Amino acid sequence: MSSNPTRVTAPDGTPFIEVVREFDAPVGLVFRASTDPGLVAQWLGPRELTMRVIEFDARQGGRYRYVHTAPDGAEYAFRGVFHTVTEPLIIQTFEYEGAPGSVSLETRILDDIGGRTRMRQNAVFPSVAARDEALAAGMEHGITDSMDRLAELLAVGTARPGR
Amino acid sequence: MSSNPTRVTAPDGTPFIEVVREFDAPVGLVFRASTDPGLVAQWLGPRELTMRVIEFDARQGGRYRYVHTAPDGAEYAFRGVFHTVTEPLIIQTFEYEGAPGSVSLETRILDDIGGRTRMRQNAVFPSVAARDEALAAGMEHGITDSMDRLAELLAVGTARPGR
Repeated sequence: MSSNPTRVTAPDGTPFIEVVREFDAPVGLVFRASTDPGLVAQWLGPRELTMRVIEFDARQGGRYRYVHTAPDGAEYAFRGVFHTVTEPLIIQTFEYEGAPGSVSLETRILDDIGGRTRMRQNAVFPSVAARDEALAAGMEHGITDSMDRLAELLAVGTARPGR
Repeated sequence: MSSNPTRVTAPDGTPFIEVVREFDAPVGLVFRASTDPGLVAQWLGPRELTMRVIEFDARQGGRYRYVHTAPDGAEYAFRGVFHTVTEPLIIQTFEYEGAPGSVSLETRILDDIGGRTRMRQNAVFPSVAARDEALAAGMEHGITDSMDRLAELLAVGTARPGR
């Protein structure tokens, strides 16, 4: 199991949330796990929620929408569009449908660090208040859970045959 | 001719550019002038440039791309995708292809003020430096020219028959 930490930075008074995480897998595999809806559904979001992908068309101009369901049945829907999907770069919008109109823009780049991958993600919100609301709603928990789950999925994908 | 001023606000140390402008035309007409590519081509950008629309598909997930040409033949290309296009709200990404990867997110809302329209636009960049570079490249001149040209186009559209 990977023990790489996830660093989440959200300086006070700014509309930014920055995430840095390393993975013990090559860039190509991390990119595929970020663009293939069948794989995305296995790691995106907090562990305690289940994810249902409505659409996930990871190409320029493509849309995505998915629903997270909590153990108590509560549903949380998210949607956005892809501005850039060109390995190693993904730029997309992100909106929680429960807070309509508060759309953020996420830029995610994958650096090759000697066969491993460093993911750097920058999210920017339309205001400092909108960023603060996303944090208050538990966004950091969702991010760190997602990154750990992605690492676990990649560990399966990079396991040597026969192990 | 309208004499409504364009207010452009870009506080130091933030990644924001905010624009407020009133128009002597109803919301529906301003929205149409913002989503119909044939109309957009008549007002978007500085006066001294000509605009060529490559694509402009103003609906959720639709893409746009256009090229501005200067009198000396220099070309400046821009592209983005639409996240929301629902009157009176437009949310879209914006990228100058000469500064690839520096993508901003624009939220534009049209308020009905007694049959006239107040447009409020918020652009947010992925960093303060990226916002500062856009301003240094003359973005404010492009915005104020665009708003004046849109007002002139709307004045034609709202002119009473026979005048």
